This record gives sequence, structure tokens and C-alpha cells, in this order.
Amino acid sequence: MSDLPSFVRVNEEGPREGFQIEKGPIPTARKIELVDALSETGLSAIQVVSFVNPRRVPGMADADEVARGFHRKPGVRYTALWLNDRGFERAVAAGVFDLTGVIALTASEALLLRNQQRSFDEDLAAQHEMVKLYERHRVPVDHGYVMAAFGCNFQGDIPPSKVLDLVGRIVDLAREHHSEIKSLTLADTMGWATPTSIKRVVCAVRDRFPELRITLHLHDTRGMGIANVYAGLECGVASFDAAVAGLGGCPFAGHAGAAGNVCTEDLVFMLQELGIGTGVDLEKLIGVARLAEDIVGHSLPGSVMKGGSLESLRKRAQGHCLA
Amino acid sequence: MSDLPSFVRVNEEGPREGFQIEKGPIPTARKIELVDALSETGLSAIQVVSFVNPRRVPGMADADEVARGFHRKPGVRYTALWLNDRGFERAVAAGVFDLTGVIALTASEALLLRNQQRSFDEDLAAQHEMVKLYERHRVPVDHGYVMAAFGCNFQGDIPPSKVLDLVGRIVDLAREHHSEIKSLTLADTMGWATPTSIKRVVCAVRDRFPELRITLHLHDTRGMGIANVYAGLECGVASFDAAVAGLGGCPFAGHAGAAGNVCTEDLVFMLQELGIGTGVDLEKLIGVARLAEDIVGHSLPGSVMKGGSLESLRKRAQGHCLA
Repeated sequence: MSDLPSFVRVNEEGPREGFQIEKGPIPTARKIELVDALSETGLSAIQVVSFVNPRRVPGMADADEVARGFHRKPGVRYTALWLNDRGFERAVAAGVFDLTGVIALTASEALLLRNQQRSFDEDLAAQHEMVKLYERHRVPVDHGYVMAAFGCNFQGDIPPSKVLDLVGRIVDLAREHHSEIKSLTLADTMGWATPTSIKRVVCAVRDRFPELRITLHLHDTRGMGIANVYAGLECGVASFDAAVAGLGGCPFAGHAGAAGNVCTEDLVFMLQELGIGTGVDLEKLIGVARLAEDIVGHSLPGSVMKGGSLESLRKRAQGHCLA
Repeated sequence: MSDLPSFVRVNEEGPREGFQIEKGPIPTARKIELVDALSETGLSAIQVVSFVNPRRVPGMADADEVARGFHRKPGVRYTALWLNDRGFERAVAAGVFDLTGVIALTASEALLLRNQQRSFDEDLAAQHEMVKLYERHRVPVDHGYVMAAFGCNFQGDIPPSKVLDLVGRIVDLAREHHSEIKSLTLADTMGWATPTSIKRVVCAVRDRFPELRITLHLHDTRGMGIANVYAGLECGVASFDAAVAGLGGCPFAGHAGAAGNVCTEDLVFMLQELGIGTGVDLEKLIGVARLAEDIVGHSLPGSVMKGGSLESLRKRAQGHCLA
């Protein structure tokens, strides 16, 4: 049996992943309510909003108000997402986020061309400009991010050698600016990963860049999310992004690729049952998952919030045995 | 990286697991339609019905008619479930099933008392009687089955030593009747298993009984189904029960423990992506999953039928690259 990590960081992305895809308008106050409820569960980090173009992502039009409204709890890391200089400057202006300069590259040039109308070289140049911007704001540049690291609907499979090449470019780009990349997110943006490809890519990256702490960002598009987490744990990965209740996509709508991140409370349930610490109170988190369903007004894909945790059943069963 | 099996048997239980729990009456012809559609997908085995008391399981009241109506396809193994002598005799009378004498024990005495109003010793005696019945019908007794092998809502955790004890009793019971148990199902009846407990129990059984071919019967109550399959594969398990579309429970109804088996097409998708043979045509199976949703009249939990397989995306992406 593999040695699994003893503690795992769980990075909650539900408010950002979820509210940017939900169709109905959700009142700002309810978004803030969700963030504040998540803050009480013991999660390591919460991604609150994305600062993106409100015409392209109407669900994030109130990002500045959400940022002003939520209550920072000491010990929790609050993050935001941005894709360009304007987004970053909004995040800085909010004054409430733990900012990290991220160098993000995309393993699929087809996706880059389609979504950002950029070639790979143009994207690399844009990342250089972003690093200069981070430097001007004295934001440390120490995190790398590889999108579509396991496959892409428009490009097909991504070979591990491509991911290694990108990670090398991220590390080099940071060094050109006298920064050191310390951690790296490998994102399965379109739900192509399987336990075997997780192991293949993570092992390749760890062999070449053993100093990088890896985070996995896994979408559950094809139901492989939790199995992929397990494969990641077996490779020693100790940090995962997740979304409470599986927010972030409606798997009942038949949208290919629309499913959200791996579900936070299902992830925390598995980690607890494997004896891995998370700092999270699972029962509280299940309560927040139910709150998330109430806020979006439809059922969400999480399983543990429906099936229940095992701790209460264990206590009841002990009661039976003692009675 | 572990050596995974090169071929896996997929035992479809959707018609039996699903129709015994669905609330609405489902026309017999549509049940037969599902079984016949499943027969065209390349599955190794299909469990068609359970012969149980129609007052307790109204959804199976038409089991004899379903048995008469479906079309046997050569090469597919068709099975039925029964819990007592009357049920077995109905299965024999149907004349269309591949009958195996199964010795089934339950790892949780609390569950046994609650569901069958029997002590463990009474259950063991009943299994002796069932074996005598199989002998009279010249049905080979070569399969063992351990229910609630990973935990029970009424008993709590089940230690691996308990499972080993039961498997030993099953093997001994068969020998007393001059039969040899060749294969064994370990059932996670209430969705308590995690990848670690799968490995712990499967390894313990394999060490003590290396001659037994193990099947895992996994419920997805807490979203661990596919991860548990992967853990089983890593231990060399090469046979899994599953239910098309995740039939067998309504995870949206908030019933604790009501979720169905691991979803067949999600399982087959993972196996294919891991390079493991199944003989199943995934695209056809996805079509049957959609048929299952149409038959029950509500959405079902399967992911791949919503997210799509990767093969068509790979072909499209290749087209892009060649264009």
C-alpha cells in the first residue's frame, strides 16, 4: 500500500466556479452568505470571485461587491482569479485578497487560440507582461499553473512531455524575473484525466521538478474526480482544489464538459476515512453544501450530502452495541 | 505503478438493482427493452430480475414475465437473484437463467437480525438448506458472497478478520457438501468502503484464499464507487458489478444509503482509458444509459452519459490537426 500524505490542503473554489456558471441571477448577499459559511468549516483556502469581463461572465458582474461584503476569518487564505491586467488590478483594489503572482500556461494551443485568440508565443509574452505587473505591485511570483494538462476537447490527449516543457518554461520565466516558482497547479480543465494519466503526469513532473508542491485541479466531467484524487494521493499530492456540493456545472443539463470540480465534501469525506487530516469539520461542510443547493435553487451533484457521513452512523451503531 | 488486470468482467445489475427501487410502475415491456438493449453492448453478464416477495418489492412483481420476455444473446451470462427456496424455484422454472448456487453470508449480524430476523447461526443453517436445494437441482455451488463486507449502518465498521472468518465458513460449508468455492463477491452493501478499506479487505482475502476470483459489488452512496473500483484494480480484482446509468437509487431524494451501484458506463469508460479490455462498446452503452433515463422518467446519476466519452473528441481533434 502506498504512503499517503498525512495532511491535505483543500482549496475551496465553489463560489468562483459555481457562480460564474449558474444561469439564474443570484443575489450578492447570498454569494457572501456562502463564502462566510465556508469560512466557518476549517477550509485552508477559499476562492471568492473571478475578476473577469462581466459581459462574458454575467454571474461575476458583482465580484467587487462580493469582495467588499465577505468577512475574512483569520487563518483562511482568500483568493481571487483574474485573466489579465485589468482583472488583477481589480483584485488589488479590493484590498482583501491573499495575492499570488501566478504564471499560467495552457497545454493546448487549440484551446488558447479558441478562447484567447493567442498563439503559444503570444501567450508566453503576455505572461511576461503579467509578471512585470506583479513586480510593480510587489506581489510575489511563486506559483505556476498548467491548464488542460491532461487533455483538451479541441487538441486531444496532451503528452506528459508537453506538460514538462511548460513547467520548465514557467520556472525559467520566473527566474528571468528573479523569482522562484515553489508550487504548481496541474489542471484537468476539461475532465480528461484518469487515475493512470494522473500518475503518469504527476510522476513525470515530480521527477523533473521535485521542489515543486503540486496542487491538482480536477473536473468531474466523466465521474473520475474522486478516483483521480486518490491516484494523486498515491503520488504524494497533498493539495486539491474542490467545489462545495460539486458547484460549477450542471451535470443534469447534458452539457458535455460542463460538470464542476470534484465535490469538496466528498473529497473531505474520503480524506477523513483514509485517516488524512484536513482541518475541515465535515458535518459543517455538509451543511454548507445544502446551503449551496438552496442558493442556486436546484440539486447539485455531491454524494455525501445525500448519503451522509459515517461518523454519525458509527456512533449510532456503538449505541446499539452498548444497549 | 501497479500492474492492473488486462481484462475485466463487467456484470450489469441495473435491471435488477434499478427496477426494484423505482417508485413508479414501469411497464414490463420497457424492462425487457432495457435488458435486450444491454445484451447488444458486449457486457459479460446481465442480472435480469430478482425473484422476491412482490409484497415487499412491488417493482419485481412481474419478474416471471420479464424472464419469459427477454431474448438471450449467445455469449452473455443471464442471472437472477433470489433470497430463499421459493425464489430459487421460480428462477429454475423460468428456464432461461445461468444458475449458480451461491453461499451468501452477512458480515453484520445487526443487519441480519433487522432484515431477515435471523441470528448468524440461523442464517448459516439456512445456507446449508439452500445448498441441499441446489444439489437436488444439480446446480453447482461454487460462488460465495459476503454482504456488508466493509461496514453497516446498524453495526458500524466491519473488521477484515470478520470477513476472513465468513469466507472461511463459506468455503468450509461448500466442502461439507463436496463442492469447491471458486469465486467470491465482496459487497459494499451500504456504501461504507473507501480505497483504503478496499485494499485492506481484498488483500487480506487474497492472502488467505489466493484461489478465489474476487468480484466487487460497490454502491456509490458517498461518491467513492469509481475510486473504490480503481483501488480494487490495483489489488488485481478483475470483476465488478455495476448498474447502467447508476440505476438503483435516487441520489436526489436525500435517502441516506439509497444510491445505486457504481455506474456501468463510467466504469467501462475508466477501464477503456486505463487500457483494460471489457468487450463492451462504450458508445452503445451510453445509448442504453439514456434509454434507462427515458424508461424511469427522471435523470440518473451517471456522468459519462452527460460528459461524453473521449473517443469522439479525439477523432474530432485529429480532424482539426489534419485540417
